Amino acid sequence: MTEQSVANIGVVGLAVMGSNLARNLASREGNTVAIFNRSWERTETLITEHPEAGFVPAHSYEEFAASLSKPRTAIIMVQAGRGTDAVIDELTKVFEPGDIIVDGGNANFHDTIAREQAVRETGIHFVGTGISGGEEGALHGPSIMPGGSVESYETLGPILASIAARADDGEPCVTHVGTDGAGHFVKMVHNGIEYADMQLIAEAYDLIRRGTGKTPAEIADVFDEWNTTELESYLIEITAQVLRQTDAETGKPLVDVILDAAGAKGTGAWTVQNALDLGVPVSGIAEAVFARSLSSKAAQRAAAAGVLPGPSSEDWKPSDPDAFIEDVRQALYASKIIAYSQGFDEIIAGAEQFGWDIKKGEIAKIWRAGCIIRARFLGRITEAYASDPSLVALVLAPYFRDAVTEAQGAWRRVVVSAAEAGIPSPAFSSSLAYYDGLRAERLPAALVQGQRDFFGAHTYKRIDKDGIFHTLWSGDRSEIETEPSWH
Amino acid sequence: MTEQSVANIGVVGLAVMGSNLARNLASREGNTVAIFNRSWERTETLITEHPEAGFVPAHSYEEFAASLSKPRTAIIMVQAGRGTDAVIDELTKVFEPGDIIVDGGNANFHDTIAREQAVRETGIHFVGTGISGGEEGALHGPSIMPGGSVESYETLGPILASIAARADDGEPCVTHVGTDGAGHFVKMVHNGIEYADMQLIAEAYDLIRRGTGKTPAEIADVFDEWNTTELESYLIEITAQVLRQTDAETGKPLVDVILDAAGAKGTGAWTVQNALDLGVPVSGIAEAVFARSLSSKAAQRAAAAGVLPGPSSEDWKPSDPDAFIEDVRQALYASKIIAYSQGFDEIIAGAEQFGWDIKKGEIAKIWRAGCIIRARFLGRITEAYASDPSLVALVLAPYFRDAVTEAQGAWRRVVVSAAEAGIPSPAFSSSLAYYDGLRAERLPAALVQGQRDFFGAHTYKRIDKDGIFHTLWSGDRSEIETEPSWH
Repeated sequence: MTEQSVANIGVVGLAVMGSNLARNLASREGNTVAIFNRSWERTETLITEHPEAGFVPAHSYEEFAASLSKPRTAIIMVQAGRGTDAVIDELTKVFEPGDIIVDGGNANFHDTIAREQAVRETGIHFVGTGISGGEEGALHGPSIMPGGSVESYETLGPILASIAARADDGEPCVTHVGTDGAGHFVKMVHNGIEYADMQLIAEAYDLIRRGTGKTPAEIADVFDEWNTTELESYLIEITAQVLRQTDAETGKPLVDVILDAAGAKGTGAWTVQNALDLGVPVSGIAEAVFARSLSSKAAQRAAAAGVLPGPSSEDWKPSDPDAFIEDVRQALYASKIIAYSQGFDEIIAGAEQFGWDIKKGEIAKIWRAGCIIRARFLGRITEAYASDPSLVALVLAPYFRDAVTEAQGAWRRVVVSAAEAGIPSPAFSSSLAYYDGLRAERLPAALVQGQRDFFGAHTYKRIDKDGIFHTLWSGDRSEIETEPSWH
Repeated sequence: MTEQSVANIGVVGLAVMGSNLARNLASREGNTVAIFNRSWERTETLITEHPEAGFVPAHSYEEFAASLSKPRTAIIMVQAGRGTDAVIDELTKVFEPGDIIVDGGNANFHDTIAREQAVRETGIHFVGTGISGGEEGALHGPSIMPGGSVESYETLGPILASIAARADDGEPCVTHVGTDGAGHFVKMVHNGIEYADMQLIAEAYDLIRRGTGKTPAEIADVFDEWNTTELESYLIEITAQVLRQTDAETGKPLVDVILDAAGAKGTGAWTVQNALDLGVPVSGIAEAVFARSLSSKAAQRAAAAGVLPGPSSEDWKPSDPDAFIEDVRQALYASKIIAYSQGFDEIIAGAEQFGWDIKKGEIAKIWRAGCIIRARFLGRITEAYASDPSLVALVLAPYFRDAVTEAQGAWRRVVVSAAEAGIPSPAFSSSLAYYDGLRAERLPAALVQGQRDFFGAHTYKRIDKDGIFHTLWSGDRSEIETEPSWH
């Protein structure tokens, strides 16, 4: 049934994401798509339901390899982890040097670095690739973040460009991010930013709902309106749609019947864990991840509700609801700028640590369409890095600095209201605290250094001269010049 | 020069911590201490400077082993990482089954688990042990957190008890925490809590200084006064001493000449990284770690200061400085309770994950003296777990719930003041947001679940019936019952 060497691209793993990506590939001029799945059933379903795709189905890895023209190029779309390794093992048996294995799953970039190194020894290219956009993105055009060798991108680039989302200016949302794990690293940070963005939107919704008493449908209107401002983004757009949805069974707003326990697939946690390795403060992302885990602590929440006191939302209402909503909008915008600024700090630190030449402006460019965090303001990020490639922090670019300057009065009022009203706003307040920390002429970290030197002889530096110093706290309290301690 | 098999305990690694621990051991009735260091010079210095200790010095691992009575017991005090592995390699060559190797460094508990497993195959016990208290603690009495086998603790327990700090009731601050890596795990969380505690104190200092204009010496008086309240603790005590210190060279307060860039040795970051693995929100610790890393971003801070606008501290003064200081004290206390509550959540989750039978009350007990976070209120934690061993969150214990109830008005006022004044208080505000999240009847996590279902078909649960659901967002928007998604 299989013709030989007719397909220019293959897909392994035909769950929803893989099927959709295969259909997307098949729909583009010039592509013939080989498909393989561990169980034949899924393959059969796909070819039956989509005869228009002209798929070249395979019953085995051998047949799959035989159906691909050289250099063979296959995208793996299976659950990250051992599933991926199993498929790589099989493909390296049937592929040849020069062929390309693409992992399109949400792999940990450390694993991708290790896999690339292992596969490289066979002469086959291994390309860890971030793909964002969910099921719809996979089908109609995702944002694609490939790592791997420059050489592999010569073959792979045009194929990925054929299926990628296109920004308003027509550019496909794909670029060679950097070598080995760079693609999965940047996808990870993308997801971390997504966590922060979603949490900020959730806090904005909660503040408006509890503050003004508006219904979810009314708040949907607010988000629709916000979507005509600089906040314009996919997440704001779908928030309005979710809030407008009515549950058919109860007639209530759907958001009121969904259990308020947020799940997570791990990439948000990875973003924070790697930021900690890199010494980059990504407090907005961390608070978002923690907010999800707190929401899932059913036993603690059940025990705490009604037992831990606080102001009731009845006690507190903004005097001018419309002004309050506008304040929340500005607070959301300012906090979002901080989340992106922190995320780009992590990308910069990761690039330095792992030796990747990541073009920050290009990353913002390929996030403009297709991916979950696509937003109008990504164009501003590209502009910021274009005009200053060595920009020391995104929030310091003139456009963003001005935006935060304008928003900060509102931002502070919202954080104040949340604290007074007892409405949890961890991401809003954390972002503001970060902002105030970043701009502080002097931080109480000097006291922390003093404490550390006191109890652990961890030493300190001085503002007025070079060197490493230690005060003999348990001696005569004189200061000595010394070496850094390790303990 | 070495007598044979006369020492009941040995120490390998004679930098400050190792030397002090060896001297502590030697000073206790019944101990004879063998010592070994890679370079003889340090050994020689130690025996020359401390003839009273009666050390049994060794020139080689063979001689060291020969000087120890059986079961041989040796504490390694070297820099965590490869240094530790090298010493373990050497000791396993000269030790015999039944002997005990103790790692007293700040090892990552994952490494300790792996090392214990490897060493166990030789029949030798490996005991990863947390030791807190810094140089002074090592010398006069640290808080000691041993893991490893129950069997090894029969020999090791009395030796460690002989040098441990003693609480006011005379009990030595040591307990068998749990098997393999449990000791280093709990020490890690101890350090994480220490980060949070220090950051909270630093924020309190900063708020008082910028809010009231008091000098560091005047604020030292405030901390001395606080040290007579429920805040009584080592960290509060040394904060007063650090703030009172005058720099001999400039005549300025020392805290004003110390560079405000806080260092970190990694255990705080580990605490957060593992909490993320375990799904435990430790936002207070995370904000403390991030505050240190932000303080060290010299280039960003230099570029931001004076460029990012905000209220100047001149704009904002509390109307009643004394009342403000009392508010800060209460905010500090409430935030500290949250930090400990989060830390104990991590201990509980870790114990469950790794199969350790950790007695929470015992942990609080051995932290009452010797360690950096020793504090009056640890007795309250022990009481809380004694009266309810399955306490679902520390902050829900009656004593702490009442304390937070009393403090929360002040806590909110302080977070409000910080936001209005532009004084960064990430740990204060994060703790309050966590508190408000924990007690919320309903969280906007429901909206997050709706968003996730919209863009990624991640599914959701309902509040009114069991099952996993998905709305066909890109179809007719009806709801279907489904299976959890993996992508």
